[in-house]
Amino acid sequence: MGNKVTPRTLSGFMELLPQEQLKFDKIVRTLQDVYASYGFLPLDTPILESSEVLLAKAGGETEKQIYRFNRGDTDLAMRFDLTVPLAKYVAKNYSNLTFPFKRFQIGKVYRGERAQKGRFREFYQADIDIIGDTKLDIVNDAEVPSIIYNIFTNLGLDDFTIRINNRKVLSGFFEILELSENVTDILRIVDKIEKIGKDAVAEELALLGATSHQCDQILEFIGISGSTEEVIARLRSYGGANTMFDAGVDELEAVVKGIAAFGVPEKNYKIDLCIARGLDYYTGTVYETTFNKHPEIGSICSGGRYENLAEFYTDKKLPGVGISIGLTRLFYILSTMDYLNDNSVFGADVLVIPMTGDLSCAIQVSTRLRNSGIRTQIYFEQKKFKHKIGYADKLRIPYAAFIGEDEIASGKVTVKNMKTGEQRTEALDVLIPVIQEELKQNQAQKIISIL
Amino acid sequence: MGNKVTPRTLSGFMELLPQEQLKFDKIVRTLQDVYASYGFLPLDTPILESSEVLLAKAGGETEKQIYRFNRGDTDLAMRFDLTVPLAKYVAKNYSNLTFPFKRFQIGKVYRGERAQKGRFREFYQADIDIIGDTKLDIVNDAEVPSIIYNIFTNLGLDDFTIRINNRKVLSGFFEILELSENVTDILRIVDKIEKIGKDAVAEELALLGATSHQCDQILEFIGISGSTEEVIARLRSYGGANTMFDAGVDELEAVVKGIAAFGVPEKNYKIDLCIARGLDYYTGTVYETTFNKHPEIGSICSGGRYENLAEFYTDKKLPGVGISIGLTRLFYILSTMDYLNDNSVFGADVLVIPMTGDLSCAIQVSTRLRNSGIRTQIYFEQKKFKHKIGYADKLRIPYAAFIGEDEIASGKVTVKNMKTGEQRTEALDVLIPVIQEELKQNQAQKIISIL
Repeated sequence: MGNKVTPRTLSGFMELLPQEQLKFDKIVRTLQDVYASYGFLPLDTPILESSEVLLAKAGGETEKQIYRFNRGDTDLAMRFDLTVPLAKYVAKNYSNLTFPFKRFQIGKVYRGERAQKGRFREFYQADIDIIGDTKLDIVNDAEVPSIIYNIFTNLGLDDFTIRINNRKVLSGFFEILELSENVTDILRIVDKIEKIGKDAVAEELALLGATSHQCDQILEFIGISGSTEEVIARLRSYGGANTMFDAGVDELEAVVKGIAAFGVPEKNYKIDLCIARGLDYYTGTVYETTFNKHPEIGSICSGGRYENLAEFYTDKKLPGVGISIGLTRLFYILSTMDYLNDNSVFGADVLVIPMTGDLSCAIQVSTRLRNSGIRTQIYFEQKKFKHKIGYADKLRIPYAAFIGEDEIASGKVTVKNMKTGEQRTEALDVLIPVIQEELKQNQAQKIISIL
Repeated sequence: MGNKVTPRTLSGFMELLPQEQLKFDKIVRTLQDVYASYGFLPLDTPILESSEVLLAKAGGETEKQIYRFNRGDTDLAMRFDLTVPLAKYVAKNYSNLTFPFKRFQIGKVYRGERAQKGRFREFYQADIDIIGDTKLDIVNDAEVPSIIYNIFTNLGLDDFTIRINNRKVLSGFFEILELSENVTDILRIVDKIEKIGKDAVAEELALLGATSHQCDQILEFIGISGSTEEVIARLRSYGGANTMFDAGVDELEAVVKGIAAFGVPEKNYKIDLCIARGLDYYTGTVYETTFNKHPEIGSICSGGRYENLAEFYTDKKLPGVGISIGLTRLFYILSTMDYLNDNSVFGADVLVIPMTGDLSCAIQVSTRLRNSGIRTQIYFEQKKFKHKIGYADKLRIPYAAFIGEDEIASGKVTVKNMKTGEQRTEALDVLIPVIQEELKQNQAQKIISIL
């Protein structure tokens, strides 16, 4: 052949080597299993949608980043999140769904951002949402942090904090300060406090027209800290002046009490009055989750309560609460920090190595292993022994099973533990439980391991 | 709100209701588990690629169907199969891969076909391939049908036939007939015999310039049938005249003998000399799989052996063997024929229904159930009892657990089997094993059920 095309992958598109892909997939399965354990139903919407549908609500930055194109007469766009497709889906299938509708979706989304390290144009989001019909009980807002807690502990991370706030508390407070005209702007500024610091926040608030007294009040307020009981008590001291504020405090209290009932340890959650979430969309509870050791990463799981999921598509009032994990970015960060556990994933459990030209015994052994739940590959290529055993080594397969003339004659199998080098010749009936036991230990290893 | 956008999904894009999505996902997990049981490694390549890379080889019909567009200076295309991205991946990562490289990929691909019933523009393919470096043993070609066999029997289908042929046998035979100039055309015509019939094949062969004697010979040859031994014996009678033919028969014999060693029952495979697969790409073994009761569907799993996976990207010789399942189409067909088993999928196992305002006991019960591997949802909404129990019914949740004052006082739980209506009040320790046992039976139900 003459000219070759250079095989390359677009910048901003993650494509993993097998050992890394195994890790990514282990994370995905952990999420799927946790979501399913709470009764969330799977959903898989198209990646391509009509632009009219997908952009019913979009605007600003997001719209500029969208992969949009025409094919024939059709104006198409690739989804940029999983929320808009959910809104479309619920509005479209309203009469066929049972509410509260709990769904999870783990899928790729597309944003044509400026390429830079750690920024992806194609990336996975993992979303859960609980959608009510007209109403949705506040207890759902308390269940969500228990799911976040279960996700991260199941992945192997325990040094994280779920930060909880309520936008009604913030908005109500700003109304008390007679700053109600600027609530959205103030929330946007307050939301940046961790990034830009107190002074810069005060400066921006002043530019917005807040007096220095108002600034002080805001900074004091968002600085309230302590146990959840202490924070609720401090908030109650502002009570009685604004109904929205009081409703927000009631909700916040219900949520933090609920979280305790769900068994989330106190060290893993707190009220943080700085959290506002930039999006207009949230109307009550808001969440962010931070990795205590690495606050610089920002939130690794965020979400909140919204009043109306699908107002661009339907008159039905569909309140909901949900969270989203930016999985590709999280994976990239954990991988860069070397926090992913190589010993938690194996592409196969046993490599069967035939030592003679007669493969039938090797095939039978493999079938029996597979039927015992042991993932088994046979090395069929005619290579030197060194090459065959090297294959198991390179692929990190924990066991090699040799089937030579002795084994064929005796009906036994010689198995080598590739990690310890230990080798034994036994009947399969004896070997299978031993292998199963070690595999169970491997499978129980968490994917995130921080030493 | 004023004008609403009608929530709709593009035609040719499958978007399932939750109960159907559960079934689709059960199929996907079954495939993932079978592939993994043979040591195939997962792969997840981008959906968007540079057009130059993706279209290095494409042409004709396929190229016209591609979703291709520009963004800035970049000419982009959405993948139309999983083979080209695999070729790119292997060429790009050659030095980081261990050969034979066994990979599976289950992912969406895009083809802008004319919209019609049962045709999809976005659809899942489920592919496995085994790629060798320079060489790949023929035994791999025998392992592949054993994987096909395992996939379909694990899904619940047993009335299928894996049809096997070898293109060297066909090409060699046409050379014996001195028709070697037209081999590709003849293969294309022969491949259509099931669709268009013997006479139409003879007519097309005549148009190609074949004499009536040659036509008769071809039709007789591709009509050879019988047990695999009988067919091989008949083929041997043509032997000695053409080295390619003889090599093909040797390969075919090795493959069918290997399949038997892999334990595939004779009723599930046969040699079918009509099978050629349209693609130029295949050079040896070819497979098609048909659903005996429904030959009109055509092949539900096809593939074969190729000499050179990635010749457009690299000088390395990378032979391989693989198969592909058009999952979305298969799902559509099974669903239309009502062959998908509703009793094999459940979105949750237990719905906990709090009967008082005190939720803490309900939450504790749920947590214990979840920790026992039982997927548990709590009904939090303040609705009438009828509505609560109706929720379990509509979502087909097999058990409802009531937590009322009596239960809170006694520490017991009242559980109702939603199918039988049977209700019992017991301690959780007693109930959990009962529920687990029934769930195990549900989980063991195959997704395909043909009565």
